[in-house]
Amino acid sequence: MNYREEKDALGTVRIPETVLWGPQTQRSFENFKIGPKMPYAVIKALITIKLYAAKVNQDLGVLAPAKADLIVATCKKLLQGDYQAAFPLVVYQTGSGTQTNMNVNEVIVHLAKTIDSSIPLHPNDDVNHSQSSNDVFPTAMMITASLALPPLLQSLTAARQTLAQKAAAFKDVIKIGRTHLQDATPLTVGQELSGYESALAHDQQYLEALQATLLELPIGGTAVGTGLNAPAGFDVKMTQALADHYHLAFIPAPNKFQGLANHSGLDVVHGALKTLAADLVKIGNDLRFLASGPRAGYGEFQIPANEPGSSIMPGKVNPTQIEALTMVCARILGNDTTLGFAASQGNFELNVYKPVIIATFLESVTLLTDVIASVDTHLLKGLKVNPERMTQLLKHSLMTVTALTPHIGYAKSAEIAQTAQKEGTTLKDAALKLHYVTAKEFDAWLDFKKMV
Amino acid sequence: MNYREEKDALGTVRIPETVLWGPQTQRSFENFKIGPKMPYAVIKALITIKLYAAKVNQDLGVLAPAKADLIVATCKKLLQGDYQAAFPLVVYQTGSGTQTNMNVNEVIVHLAKTIDSSIPLHPNDDVNHSQSSNDVFPTAMMITASLALPPLLQSLTAARQTLAQKAAAFKDVIKIGRTHLQDATPLTVGQELSGYESALAHDQQYLEALQATLLELPIGGTAVGTGLNAPAGFDVKMTQALADHYHLAFIPAPNKFQGLANHSGLDVVHGALKTLAADLVKIGNDLRFLASGPRAGYGEFQIPANEPGSSIMPGKVNPTQIEALTMVCARILGNDTTLGFAASQGNFELNVYKPVIIATFLESVTLLTDVIASVDTHLLKGLKVNPERMTQLLKHSLMTVTALTPHIGYAKSAEIAQTAQKEGTTLKDAALKLHYVTAKEFDAWLDFKKMV
Amino acid sequence: MNYREEKDALGTVRIPETVLWGPQTQRSFENFKIGPKMPYAVIKALITIKLYAAKVNQDLGVLAPAKADLIVATCKKLLQGDYQAAFPLVVYQTGSGTQTNMNVNEVIVHLAKTIDSSIPLHPNDDVNHSQSSNDVFPTAMMITASLALPPLLQSLTAARQTLAQKAAAFKDVIKIGRTHLQDATPLTVGQELSGYESALAHDQQYLEALQATLLELPIGGTAVGTGLNAPAGFDVKMTQALADHYHLAFIPAPNKFQGLANHSGLDVVHGALKTLAADLVKIGNDLRFLASGPRAGYGEFQIPANEPGSSIMPGKVNPTQIEALTMVCARILGNDTTLGFAASQGNFELNVYKPVIIATFLESVTLLTDVIASVDTHLLKGLKVNPERMTQLLKHSLMTVTALTPHIGYAKSAEIAQTAQKEGTTLKDAALKLHYVTAKEFDAWLDFKKMV
Amino acid sequence: MNYREEKDALGTVRIPETVLWGPQTQRSFENFKIGPKMPYAVIKALITIKLYAAKVNQDLGVLAPAKADLIVATCKKLLQGDYQAAFPLVVYQTGSGTQTNMNVNEVIVHLAKTIDSSIPLHPNDDVNHSQSSNDVFPTAMMITASLALPPLLQSLTAARQTLAQKAAAFKDVIKIGRTHLQDATPLTVGQELSGYESALAHDQQYLEALQATLLELPIGGTAVGTGLNAPAGFDVKMTQALADHYHLAFIPAPNKFQGLANHSGLDVVHGALKTLAADLVKIGNDLRFLASGPRAGYGEFQIPANEPGSSIMPGKVNPTQIEALTMVCARILGNDTTLGFAASQGNFELNVYKPVIIATFLESVTLLTDVIASVDTHLLKGLKVNPERMTQLLKHSLMTVTALTPHIGYAKSAEIAQTAQKEGTTLKDAALKLHYVTAKEFDAWLDFKKMV
Repeated sequence: MNYREEKDALGTVRIPETVLWGPQTQRSFENFKIGPKMPYAVIKALITIKLYAAKVNQDLGVLAPAKADLIVATCKKLLQGDYQAAFPLVVYQTGSGTQTNMNVNEVIVHLAKTIDSSIPLHPNDDVNHSQSSNDVFPTAMMITASLALPPLLQSLTAARQTLAQKAAAFKDVIKIGRTHLQDATPLTVGQELSGYESALAHDQQYLEALQATLLELPIGGTAVGTGLNAPAGFDVKMTQALADHYHLAFIPAPNKFQGLANHSGLDVVHGALKTLAADLVKIGNDLRFLASGPRAGYGEFQIPANEPGSSIMPGKVNPTQIEALTMVCARILGNDTTLGFAASQGNFELNVYKPVIIATFLESVTLLTDVIASVDTHLLKGLKVNPERMTQLLKHSLMTVTALTPHIGYAKSAEIAQTAQKEGTTLKDAALKLHYVTAKEFDAWLDFKKMV
Repeated sequence: MNYREEKDALGTVRIPETVLWGPQTQRSFENFKIGPKMPYAVIKALITIKLYAAKVNQDLGVLAPAKADLIVATCKKLLQGDYQAAFPLVVYQTGSGTQTNMNVNEVIVHLAKTIDSSIPLHPNDDVNHSQSSNDVFPTAMMITASLALPPLLQSLTAARQTLAQKAAAFKDVIKIGRTHLQDATPLTVGQELSGYESALAHDQQYLEALQATLLELPIGGTAVGTGLNAPAGFDVKMTQALADHYHLAFIPAPNKFQGLANHSGLDVVHGALKTLAADLVKIGNDLRFLASGPRAGYGEFQIPANEPGSSIMPGKVNPTQIEALTMVCARILGNDTTLGFAASQGNFELNVYKPVIIATFLESVTLLTDVIASVDTHLLKGLKVNPERMTQLLKHSLMTVTALTPHIGYAKSAEIAQTAQKEGTTLKDAALKLHYVTAKEFDAWLDFKKMV
Repeated sequence: MNYREEKDALGTVRIPETVLWGPQTQRSFENFKIGPKMPYAVIKALITIKLYAAKVNQDLGVLAPAKADLIVATCKKLLQGDYQAAFPLVVYQTGSGTQTNMNVNEVIVHLAKTIDSSIPLHPNDDVNHSQSSNDVFPTAMMITASLALPPLLQSLTAARQTLAQKAAAFKDVIKIGRTHLQDATPLTVGQELSGYESALAHDQQYLEALQATLLELPIGGTAVGTGLNAPAGFDVKMTQALADHYHLAFIPAPNKFQGLANHSGLDVVHGALKTLAADLVKIGNDLRFLASGPRAGYGEFQIPANEPGSSIMPGKVNPTQIEALTMVCARILGNDTTLGFAASQGNFELNVYKPVIIATFLESVTLLTDVIASVDTHLLKGLKVNPERMTQLLKHSLMTVTALTPHIGYAKSAEIAQTAQKEGTTLKDAALKLHYVTAKEFDAWLDFKKMV
Repeated sequence: MNYREEKDALGTVRIPETVLWGPQTQRSFENFKIGPKMPYAVIKALITIKLYAAKVNQDLGVLAPAKADLIVATCKKLLQGDYQAAFPLVVYQTGSGTQTNMNVNEVIVHLAKTIDSSIPLHPNDDVNHSQSSNDVFPTAMMITASLALPPLLQSLTAARQTLAQKAAAFKDVIKIGRTHLQDATPLTVGQELSGYESALAHDQQYLEALQATLLELPIGGTAVGTGLNAPAGFDVKMTQALADHYHLAFIPAPNKFQGLANHSGLDVVHGALKTLAADLVKIGNDLRFLASGPRAGYGEFQIPANEPGSSIMPGKVNPTQIEALTMVCARILGNDTTLGFAASQGNFELNVYKPVIIATFLESVTLLTDVIASVDTHLLKGLKVNPERMTQLLKHSLMTVTALTPHIGYAKSAEIAQTAQKEGTTLKDAALKLHYVTAKEFDAWLDFKKMV
């Protein structure tokens, strides 16, 4: 391989001739062979920031128009093409994301040369003008997080709609309720599914109530939050430009010191993701238990057979979509621990867990978005019920005796249930035998439809 | 000890003669010798629910006025006196809190006898009328959680005010910033503290944005959410009565199936407590590091000496309040894992982790409330700064060279800093020696006051 | 209330006249009104350390015999009586436990005066001689942790024995297996329970493999690990004395710097508690699902009816012991997050999360010890099976078709199962109809007893 | 694209003509578009299992030699070449890993055709003979986990050796100790670093004490643990063959029911990884704080300058390797929550969180292996100290007064320290002024070298 040599503040670095990056990227590439690459969404947000920073710097008179134009043209080229190979750095690098910021600055300089080599660009003095990694990287975090949430909310909305449709379709199907896993009083399938939909509606509402906090961009804070070396108005103009570009209501971070040193916004929104994950586990477990069988389980629900269930047991169909779902949720619960820890470990003017925070946050949102859509498509939409099975279980149930308590009191009702249980009979048989009610009373009072 | 005998649905139970509880409490007391007692706040909320349930049941014509009046009088007596000994049950009991609900029902029946023994009350048929543990216990959870938050918000507000006052008092004290723990460009103490205040303001805002979810009371859902055996309107009247009593804007849970089976509201609010805890760890660590010394640390801040710091090292003063704070935060981070797990484990119509959820939630809120107030009183209010130390550190700093980069570029600035570092001199000496600036330019450009 | 005045390094403190503590305890009592009291087990360990420190100091010639004798006599009195009221300090105090160490030192001095007022004792110079909070507190942590584990291992052993007995009793009861919650090939109840027992045996083995790490006592390290002010041999003699007293194989911490600054031992053992908790959740969930019903659940197992299950639904019996168990496990999982965080946050020569680490560790061990014993006594010992139900489920099952695959291949077996499922018949009917086997072959190949 | 059609138990599937997989892979590929691919290490372990299963099946007379030979040849080809493209399935699929097992079975069948199309192989009947996903997948988990640990232990050993070398090199460099972040009594750099080494030695010991649990292979348990359809001896022969192949002391799982339904081994070993991560955070924080500066920090240590530290502040060198390290640790702490949750959620005869468990476990081990090696190479090996700075801090310290307490008592020592602090003088000045010691006594008693 052929190499070129480039200099940075620490000295000379050998860099493969064909790559677009410079010495700081090369150093990081060599020094950090750990884990996965920085999410490309973060790179794209950084390029977009560079594009508008060039424009705003020009507007504010701190960058020559020719340089600004060249940076803008280069960023557009980067955003339109596939330049992933130019960004080889990993998540586990410096905790400020500085090396990825420099990667972007260096690639812009090198690609710009191929567009117009007559205009000399410096990665720090020009491309990074009025900026510091310490403000542009968290700005990129907020942008990518804000872009990631709407698809999740769409997935969620779609799944809720499916649940609502199923709830409507099965609104008259009466089934036995279960509390403590034990037989309880009846409800309709529609009611049960409405509870699932309501849980997800609550979770969506939490996300929506919190997501505005992700719109606060610390751009303009530069190195420690004071905005040193950024011209007055840089923050407001940048925020406006990014808001226009992304069609999102970004605002300048109300306190830039907080914006660099704390990541409470990402932490608290992830807490709402954790809450969503917890509810998804609950719903997923219900669905797979209610579909358990085919013959030795609850057998109330029927889920689509998407694949043969077993390599040894023919005929078996497994709740695989739900297993993928609950595995994702296990990951989200863990990611929440990671976020909480990382958010707690800022020091002084900077939190240096930025890459792991944004990578983990994006992993959670993307996994949830994709798995909810998958479950919706491959399971919820095809969910069916077995009304005969439900009726059978209900008729044999003892717990519907509860409907008698307003009429004959708790103690006699309990005696009826215990007698039926002991003798293996129905409630009605036991009730009549004990002479606590007449047959007519029994039928009138213990009417499933009135109980739901 | 003398015993009396009482019967419940399972048979006869021997109960110490003097206690106020009945057979179900006694069974639970004997069967669950595990861990701490149920928080008394939950008991008080249950008693209050019983009081208003009696009234509403009477209003709706399903409970005789004499019985209702007696229940009301008994509940008032319980709420006014100290009856903690009558409630011996623990958190780690049945996961629905049924045994604590029955404990309350039984105590009311027994205490009522001492008030008016002529009116027979039944714990289930009368005191628990129109209710189930499955709806009253989560209603009590929501009430206690809603009552617990305002004192926390007050603690937080007070601490934020102290921080804001200190930020104002020290708004002109310039100090070196630190990023990556390394010397960075300067800022004022006021700016630094404003970042802390802003972090807490964000956290408070998250709590306030979310707390309405705790106002949703599932009362009226009874056993599985259908409201079986509760008269029409019971939920609305109960919610109104409780709202009036507590001066809180309670509403009937929009979906009672969700209200029994999910505890998303407590989970997501605890997520915001976790976010608060993470920020408190960051702020606490900053304060103790900035006060580290007295002679071999950062030494910028001075915290009150509340106690001798060491049993062996005289003269040492430790940041003990912050240590209590960060230990509390360690607990909150763990409690959040507990909440997330417990919230995920509901099955069908009921989540049976209710006692551990509310006990853990209340532990978190109370610890945070108390420790924030303690830190505010015993540390923040007495926080002082050492301006001489800050000035000294700033003058020796190399990183203020950043202020030269707009004038002479990144590379020359770096060379000045490196020269000063290598030769152990100040930046000015190095800058003049390298002939990159004049003394006049240096003083004009590298003005700390302009840098913050 | 009457007060006395006492002086410490910071000045004069007013102390209630009747209490046994001194000024440093009083300061902490006033400054830390946060959360629960320090576990008394830690206090007792500290008193025991003081007792032997006095002896060893005398042996090594650094403490006058009269003083040593008086300290020893006082400590014995404290250990024999009930002096909990003399130790009012809380967990959330200074992170080194210094204030509790001083509480112990001060109480010994004051109680000693009541025994022999002619010998003046100083809390630091005499009682704390050759010690620092920084080494005695973690020594007390290791002692209390080492004492807490054996009862847990006993609980665990007892529960495993019950499971083994039940496995033996039910070794010939064949039931359907379930994978993915779906019907699978059969196994015996004995095999299933042996899996539970094996899981707990593994967990016990992990605890036993790790518990030696808790025997490393950092006593003798004094303030930073160097042992400054402790005479040569103090560590070895103290460790020997404590080993003799407690009948535990304590050793001097191999590296005292690590012993003060890291709590890896408690962290890793708690990791094994977390593993145990995870297995208990799995077993608990299995038991309650297999006992679900009485009529609309799996209904294979029968658990003891310890209390009426519901305040509204008569006749219902809930798996309350398991609910207590899984709630405890939720707590353990959270406590593990607390421990991991706290263990990670040491700085330099000291970790200042000591009180929360030991309090959380002890909470976990105690809760597990008690709940396992409770579940063993109140549930496992009374566990019964419903063989008729199991046989019925097995006979209707389709998954036993797997036994045909070695004879007729996977594809034909699947076709048989699918036919039976579609037509609602048994496997045998379907197999014969499809002419893939003879009746004789079917009976010979699909023999449940051969399948387990 | 051209397609071929293949049939499985559910019907016909269209598959791209050129790929090596079959219908079940194709179904999963289409149904699960969620997250990253299954780690290739798991695929390789599965191929290796298939290879030896063919041999053992032949040995035991249940597979024709020609088929066995063809499977073996195919597996060898797969293991030697780069066939990653043939295994497109993701982690978030069915929780048993069945689809990946079938992917391997199908690829073997298709690749075998290209080797010898005259011998028909069936993915279930031949390649999967005597096996079920339920036993081969957890067997592959144990194999990959057992293979992943030794490189981590090597990284750890190397880092410990570097620490030990540095400790030896700096064994006579005396520095001030710090407890509560406050100045404390002195120790040597060698002692301090020995504490770090000891912490890692403890962590290594925990991993070594636990890793045997990963050698238990559940192969032979087939679908539910009973071994149905596997010939007698299959488990022992397979374990032996795999042990020989991998040079690891594998044993048949002592209880195969536990081996399928619980993943305690991976859970508890990950707990030890969490403990390691916690200690690494502590050590990393110490190193970066002790290297903080260059002029406004502790400044005792000097770390290698691997890259320019900042895009705006020239001359700054950041502890980037440690930031990567602590970010990895944040991930490990979260992964431990994921593992604990996933391990707790098994049901009946199977835990269906297998893919997320092994993927998360491998992520943790690999990240730790790589980051420890990186920190060792790029930071620890180049660690230097600043003895002048240490001496300067020590001389100005007040806490060395502790050395006087055995001679003049705690109270007078405290007074000396307080006087020096108040008057800004040295301890010696204060001591002489107060007439508590002579100059000669002071020099003799307060000798730093004697204090460490």
